[in-house]
Amino acid sequence: MTFLDSVIARQRETHSMLCVGLDPDPGRFPEGYGDDAEAILRFNQMVIDATAGYACCVKPQHAHYAARRAEAALEGTIEYAHSKGLPVLLDVKRADIGSTAEYYAAEAFDRYGADAATVNPYLGQDALAPFLDRSDRGIVVLCRTSNPGGADLQHLQLAEGGTLFEHVARLASTQWNAAGNVLLLVGATRPAELRRVREIVGGMGLLLAGVGAQGADVRAMMEAGKGGGLIINSSRGVTYPDFTTGDPATLVADAARKTRDEINQYL
Amino acid sequence: MTFLDSVIARQRETHSMLCVGLDPDPGRFPEGYGDDAEAILRFNQMVIDATAGYACCVKPQHAHYAARRAEAALEGTIEYAHSKGLPVLLDVKRADIGSTAEYYAAEAFDRYGADAATVNPYLGQDALAPFLDRSDRGIVVLCRTSNPGGADLQHLQLAEGGTLFEHVARLASTQWNAAGNVLLLVGATRPAELRRVREIVGGMGLLLAGVGAQGADVRAMMEAGKGGGLIINSSRGVTYPDFTTGDPATLVADAARKTRDEINQYL
Repeated sequence: MTFLDSVIARQRETHSMLCVGLDPDPGRFPEGYGDDAEAILRFNQMVIDATAGYACCVKPQHAHYAARRAEAALEGTIEYAHSKGLPVLLDVKRADIGSTAEYYAAEAFDRYGADAATVNPYLGQDALAPFLDRSDRGIVVLCRTSNPGGADLQHLQLAEGGTLFEHVARLASTQWNAAGNVLLLVGATRPAELRRVREIVGGMGLLLAGVGAQGADVRAMMEAGKGGGLIINSSRGVTYPDFTTGDPATLVADAARKTRDEINQYL
Repeated sequence: MTFLDSVIARQRETHSMLCVGLDPDPGRFPEGYGDDAEAILRFNQMVIDATAGYACCVKPQHAHYAARRAEAALEGTIEYAHSKGLPVLLDVKRADIGSTAEYYAAEAFDRYGADAATVNPYLGQDALAPFLDRSDRGIVVLCRTSNPGGADLQHLQLAEGGTLFEHVARLASTQWNAAGNVLLLVGATRPAELRRVREIVGGMGLLLAGVGAQGADVRAMMEAGKGGGLIINSSRGVTYPDFTTGDPATLVADAARKTRDEINQYL
């Protein structure tokens, strides 16, 4: 069973394509949580409990833990998500030359036990091989990121025709995908580029980032992404409702359910 | 004083352009070191003591620590290097969208206290802004990496002319370098590309990776890289001599001195 298979199985159970991004920011936690590694784990456990019924996976983003010396909270979060049956996509955006990439793959998959990880294509196939070779894990290649500056390189026109992000979509869906475990990350905020990627990669799994706080148009995104597996991430939009207005777990659960339902409207 | 300034000051003191890469691999440590975080720190302290007189900086590579749950050894290594007056370049190859990149910059510069960090250009300028804005730290942008697969994307011909890595060299040396703190990473194994990058960026600082274990031709590299600041990294070639043949510290010091002297031959 590939990563995408396990996510799709969970999508059927929860009727949800929503991936909940776990980007802890203690400054936005409800009153009284604190701000150390234990507070981060406690907050994430609350979010996981509140959203497990409305999510197909969770996506912790490594920097939010590393900046706070809270690797233990990341380990605990992944373990807790697994105990609730949630596949875990670790957002690390790694890449390095082969002998070092081995260690990055070990970090994501052996140390943290993630089911999938995000990787950056700039160093090419041999740099990603230690990830791509892990056929039991999902490898999510950055293609067209949700930030405006993504265009700086990703929209460059190539002499052979097409743009750099289209070239990445083509490589990742063919040569790089020998083990059938590759997905692509595309910004949900960019429906035109998303449509183009879908045309190139056929039914391949896509991770769409930027719903919620980054303001993606859900209808346009769903229209552009149709035709294959979709995992739709929302981080801050789900995990940081206005906590002054009620019970934190209820507010987070409501935000997750609403996001799921908004997505399902356009199925 | 920029990162490059502090490195150049140290280059004058030690008559050395050598950056010692600290990529701990307990399987290659001398007999009896052990393999936990304390062993890693002890090994690095031995290497730092042995090479401080022949090095202009050190470059720990994050994955080697993260894969082993040894972040504490990385913190201790950086602190120890600083106590010996060595600037520290943390090799992390990070990039993420802006709000997350803030946390990666905080990881490298605030948590670990590194003087410089490596970053990946694929996500564009806004993703690097939290790094580029730190004018007191050095930002080393990946341009043409030393691995063969680097060509997959970096050698793509652009419709506007030139290759992707040349485009990155141009962006990084102009728009991205408002604070004057940017350097570029170029594989020492690729003299033709190195020459091209030097033509584009003028006297900008370059980090050359791949001397030693990766087999760069030092003469060709020095000829191609001349005309501006150079930092020349060797990792395994310096830190893993055949430890069965003598005193570990002496062997490491010899390897560093020989590498320095080989480089200086072509000045």
